[in-house]
Amino acid sequence: MRLSTYFLPTLRETPAEAQIVSHRLMLRAGMIRQSSAGIYAWLPLGFRVLKKIEAIVREEQDRIGCQEMLMPTLQPADLWRESGRYDDYGPEMLRITDRHERDLLYGPTNEEQITDIFRYSVQSYRQLPKLLYHIQWKFRDEIRPRFGVMRGREFLMKDAYSFDLDAAGARRSYNKFFVCYLRTFARLGLRAIPMRADTGPIGGDLSHEFVIVAETGESEIAYHRDLLSMDWAEAHIDMDGDLQPIVDGFTEKYAATDEERDAAQEAALGDALVTGRGIEVGHIFNFGTKYSGKMNATVRDQEGKAIQLEMGSYGIGVSRLVGAIIEASHDDTGIIWPDSVAPFKVGLINLKPDDDGCRTACEDLYAKLQAAGGAPLYDDREERAGVKFAEMDLIGLPWQLVVGPRGLKSGTVELKRRAGGERRELSLDSALSELI
Amino acid sequence: MRLSTYFLPTLRETPAEAQIVSHRLMLRAGMIRQSSAGIYAWLPLGFRVLKKIEAIVREEQDRIGCQEMLMPTLQPADLWRESGRYDDYGPEMLRITDRHERDLLYGPTNEEQITDIFRYSVQSYRQLPKLLYHIQWKFRDEIRPRFGVMRGREFLMKDAYSFDLDAAGARRSYNKFFVCYLRTFARLGLRAIPMRADTGPIGGDLSHEFVIVAETGESEIAYHRDLLSMDWAEAHIDMDGDLQPIVDGFTEKYAATDEERDAAQEAALGDALVTGRGIEVGHIFNFGTKYSGKMNATVRDQEGKAIQLEMGSYGIGVSRLVGAIIEASHDDTGIIWPDSVAPFKVGLINLKPDDDGCRTACEDLYAKLQAAGGAPLYDDREERAGVKFAEMDLIGLPWQLVVGPRGLKSGTVELKRRAGGERRELSLDSALSELI
Repeated sequence: MRLSTYFLPTLRETPAEAQIVSHRLMLRAGMIRQSSAGIYAWLPLGFRVLKKIEAIVREEQDRIGCQEMLMPTLQPADLWRESGRYDDYGPEMLRITDRHERDLLYGPTNEEQITDIFRYSVQSYRQLPKLLYHIQWKFRDEIRPRFGVMRGREFLMKDAYSFDLDAAGARRSYNKFFVCYLRTFARLGLRAIPMRADTGPIGGDLSHEFVIVAETGESEIAYHRDLLSMDWAEAHIDMDGDLQPIVDGFTEKYAATDEERDAAQEAALGDALVTGRGIEVGHIFNFGTKYSGKMNATVRDQEGKAIQLEMGSYGIGVSRLVGAIIEASHDDTGIIWPDSVAPFKVGLINLKPDDDGCRTACEDLYAKLQAAGGAPLYDDREERAGVKFAEMDLIGLPWQLVVGPRGLKSGTVELKRRAGGERRELSLDSALSELI
Repeated sequence: MRLSTYFLPTLRETPAEAQIVSHRLMLRAGMIRQSSAGIYAWLPLGFRVLKKIEAIVREEQDRIGCQEMLMPTLQPADLWRESGRYDDYGPEMLRITDRHERDLLYGPTNEEQITDIFRYSVQSYRQLPKLLYHIQWKFRDEIRPRFGVMRGREFLMKDAYSFDLDAAGARRSYNKFFVCYLRTFARLGLRAIPMRADTGPIGGDLSHEFVIVAETGESEIAYHRDLLSMDWAEAHIDMDGDLQPIVDGFTEKYAATDEERDAAQEAALGDALVTGRGIEVGHIFNFGTKYSGKMNATVRDQEGKAIQLEMGSYGIGVSRLVGAIIEASHDDTGIIWPDSVAPFKVGLINLKPDDDGCRTACEDLYAKLQAAGGAPLYDDREERAGVKFAEMDLIGLPWQLVVGPRGLKSGTVELKRRAGGERRELSLDSALSELI
């Protein structure tokens, strides 16, 4: 992509309304634009990051045999009356009346809807277990939306649902998602600590939040320091095997969000206790028959007896993650994208676009990087070098390849790693071979 | 994917509420499930087709340099008050009030929102032309939703917007989309005839609908029969070259939807006139300064003068296309997917899963097809052969590979092409090499 034609409306000034660094940087880097309070349009650069995160989440869901589908954004109120949550949910639920005076709502989550689909589609224990997910926009009418995409009103969530015949099966499904989440967040460049959590309006008695450590986090957290050095993404886990020992390895270490903290346990930890603030990026729930009971979702077992389904649900805040990753990875000059979610891999900077040599060298590098799938963003604009460096640092691509007339005379270009800022003078071929 | 674990709730009976064949087949094939009137959940099989169509639409947008972004589903009413459409739009617009009594609406289209983003982001003629698109769920509160996803309320649309400095530039952008749409629909296995069309609530004076011929179509259409034999997808068009001759080649032939028909022209055509019914799958508009004027969206030209942007918008009904393709491609036993959008390429049918030889042969074929990216759906269930054949015909995968004990004795399997029904006995290796 050439910057001269790319729709990247960066801002030089820091927007006054943004209170936290990820919100400021997303606005300044031209990733999002606010449409109304807590509702954002994703501009091309932001959209690319969102899609990269979504792709990693999707791959890890698919890997555990979870099947993708797509439920609509608007749901009939009657479903929520069946579960009893229509009145419970309060003013955060966006309630809508259509032209025929029927009550709809903009889904904040989908337990009722997936239970409804399942009860009409599956009759036999032979069709269990089943894991289903979708990645869809949700709405929660926050009283005071803030922090940009971190606490917006319209947000993109991956929510998955598990259906099992008995509690042991449901626990196996829960463990799959637990381990899947460890892998997912590690691939996104994050260490998300699983923490015993309150189940809130979803319900059930087994639940973990996945929380990344960040000073700007909304919740206070406390955890055993060993959790920071555990192996989060073992490559060779058999997802159909017994995952309980892996889950136990994490959950036996103390880790708790605000509401779940335990003074006695914390005192016993002594120096091993770390306290701080965190950002919730995932939340998993085992809620047994809470919905299947109220909504009469059953299957026939081997004897033909109707059995209420054991269920769980498993959320990841996909749009929130864009902000959370920035909170965890930035410096004074801008964003530092982990390689896995970077919108482009390389920023190719032409210091003198009106110089024939620079232009020829850049066009050649650009073509070769494109051909090799290197996803270059080519700054071919007539702008001062200072502006180009500042914008490239701001948008935070992992690599910068700087081409100027002085270097070209001796056959070199400069390769800069955004994280750490290391710079090297290399021949054009050596630079290319580092990037391809 | 193994059918024994796949979430594919097919129906044996034809649902009474479905009036047209695509709706019946999508329900029977377990592709969708109605959530409320005109609102559907996409089950895994339907979701795969939706994603295939979306990917083709995306590739062709990217090819003309159109940049992807994503606008939210909910929009502030004030934007539509600026353009004057808030009151004009009528009861098809779903109007929403949030907890702070602010007026929102579920976007039926995005002219206002993209104009708003653009006026704050682009100031100079040097940043033009610009083409932007998104693929997002929309809502139109149809008084009588029907025909399944063909006239639903919540629907997935690709809408693109062009911004140019002058009318000649806007016409070049319009032509790009015109040719892009010919290619897009051809890749989807459709012949979509461009027809001069009414501009309706979008506005402007230049507009074409892209209409596929189908008996169940909602609009009457009339066109020159030569349009059916034109080349819709020339591979080597330079999208940055002069596209006017290609556009003229289509538009000089008579073709009109109901409101635009001309009795005199039709009489002159004589035998060359074809009349019938059609389904609109795309619609493009050049509306000049209609929105930029009302919303004061300008750029500075070379002399520093403020110029109102020349705009157009370009829609494709992504979810509607799933139904439209089925209307155009099915037989008495089920769907016949064009290869480009098929949810799986091959249905592998094991006629006797409890036979060791059949199971071994199938597992081997399944592994090899998967490894080669052949996207097999493996019917490994304990079911009667008749049920398996009927379901595979119903869901309409392009190829069926049938493995039974009798064939295996002589080292053969049966390969059936769904379109046309041709069957051949082949060795396992020959069958594989046809499919990989």
